[in-house]
Amino acid sequence: MRLGIDIGGTKTAAVAIGADGELTDQVRMPTGFGAEEVVATALRTVERMSELSGVGAASFTSIGIGIPGAVDSATGRVEHAVNLGLDGLDLGRRLYDRLGVDVRVENDVKAAALGAHHLLGRSDPVDLPGGRRADSMAYLNLGTGLAAGVVFDGRLLRGGHGVAGEIGHIPIDPVGVLCGCGQRGCLETVASGLAIARTWPSNSEHPARELFDAAEAGDARAIAVREDFLTGVAAAVRLLVLTVDVDAVVIGGGLAALGGPLLAGTRRILNRWAVESAFLASIDLATRVQVIPPGFPAAAVGAALVGEDPWLKSSS
Amino acid sequence: MRLGIDIGGTKTAAVAIGADGELTDQVRMPTGFGAEEVVATALRTVERMSELSGVGAASFTSIGIGIPGAVDSATGRVEHAVNLGLDGLDLGRRLYDRLGVDVRVENDVKAAALGAHHLLGRSDPVDLPGGRRADSMAYLNLGTGLAAGVVFDGRLLRGGHGVAGEIGHIPIDPVGVLCGCGQRGCLETVASGLAIARTWPSNSEHPARELFDAAEAGDARAIAVREDFLTGVAAAVRLLVLTVDVDAVVIGGGLAALGGPLLAGTRRILNRWAVESAFLASIDLATRVQVIPPGFPAAAVGAALVGEDPWLKSSS
Repeated sequence: MRLGIDIGGTKTAAVAIGADGELTDQVRMPTGFGAEEVVATALRTVERMSELSGVGAASFTSIGIGIPGAVDSATGRVEHAVNLGLDGLDLGRRLYDRLGVDVRVENDVKAAALGAHHLLGRSDPVDLPGGRRADSMAYLNLGTGLAAGVVFDGRLLRGGHGVAGEIGHIPIDPVGVLCGCGQRGCLETVASGLAIARTWPSNSEHPARELFDAAEAGDARAIAVREDFLTGVAAAVRLLVLTVDVDAVVIGGGLAALGGPLLAGTRRILNRWAVESAFLASIDLATRVQVIPPGFPAAAVGAALVGEDPWLKSSS
Repeated sequence: MRLGIDIGGTKTAAVAIGADGELTDQVRMPTGFGAEEVVATALRTVERMSELSGVGAASFTSIGIGIPGAVDSATGRVEHAVNLGLDGLDLGRRLYDRLGVDVRVENDVKAAALGAHHLLGRSDPVDLPGGRRADSMAYLNLGTGLAAGVVFDGRLLRGGHGVAGEIGHIPIDPVGVLCGCGQRGCLETVASGLAIARTWPSNSEHPARELFDAAEAGDARAIAVREDFLTGVAAAVRLLVLTVDVDAVVIGGGLAALGGPLLAGTRRILNRWAVESAFLASIDLATRVQVIPPGFPAAAVGAALVGEDPWLKSSS
């Protein structure tokens, strides 16, 4: 049994995956803040999963962790996980010292990409054309920011320098708004939670849903703001397909909770582009895009699989 | 001995590579126009290389061909090779029928990516920092158009639908000029031979060199036109690194003949961006970019290796 743990900014989720690839137990608990509390949260999660499974921690085939920030998956060290209040934590070694089993650590978006690939490969729950299995896939994470994880033939593309999939900081408009990264017009300034917070200020707990609801109700400004957002999402899909030519782009992250309206809106933009460009029409972007089913613990599932995929990385 | 043939719009180049990876014989001849002439050119090239090597065509370990257009590398079929006057040619099968040996066919930019990777891996002739070997690499082809080929761990990224690396048709300016593909502001409208033909009309045989020379001589309009072009090249480099995080981006294609001034100009832009963005500074784009040495037959060398690299593709 493989154990996967997704340490998020507020919640930590864990799943166990059997040899048949099926999810068995799942737990969820609040994430502590700061390095010591993050380690404690991870240990509590392992303990709770051990109880549920009726086995000791050492009996798990593998333990994998997905966590935000810059992760060195070779050493298990985490840097720049601002929302967790930690910068520089040897998470893998700390947990090994306590548990006596190898713990693999991966960036949460990359882990979620593996998890989404597993989901698509096993159950094909969404309308991938021809019922075929998606073997190459990009996971487009729309959370506070925007980033992607790419999977080829079940292998995660890690890259050599920790920036694979950092497409949120590719500018698409030279006169766009200033991004936190110092550039102007980055994809993240258009298609992310941060972008919605700027363009649709709101006290709602779910500003994006409020925006989409207002647009659906006919509010002209909401329609315009939503359109800019969806255009950015569609641009991210196009960028991923024209660079790595994946079979599917699966949208995940907090904004994926928008569900059907997000998928329909993104497809509408892509279909409009296809009318203007025979080239785009020929590559059929709209049918490649999907939204991950709500509640699917992609990052935890992917974390459980992190030890399984052969690494696709550079040697540097 | 492996034989690699690069069938270009005007010239066809062939190389033989020994078991030690060294280039031995090379030939070059004009390319015929149309399907029958392209097949005849390939056969003449094989015959000439057989003579030079003193072995029969059947004695080559493998024969690989790089050719423009949409290539189905599984079947050896070529579509949309407009400059060669052919649209729909079973090149692999036609040559197999005549030669009795398997002939692999690959898109010329993808083949050139493999060839450039071979070059960098073997001789490291350009200033890759720390003298390390580039194991992941993008080949940025600046020819009439703009496209890229990506190599991870010696494996060519083919993608599932023939558009991997077609980054020339990613828009970077919503109010940019109209592209032949029907979109607006594509990278190709800024950083390609077509872009220079539009922005620097000239009767020179080498308009790009004329442009660079005029800029060097202080012509204000040439400086502005060159800056736009270099900004587009730098944007392509940034896009490739932020998506696939390659160690190196090697510029090839006809415009690579610009050599040092192209490299220096692209690095100047990337370094300017690094001053404005700590994020970009941290990923050190300027040291990752290189220009392929003049005269290196990247596509022919890569074609010779096409049978060697395990395919990195989707199953669809």
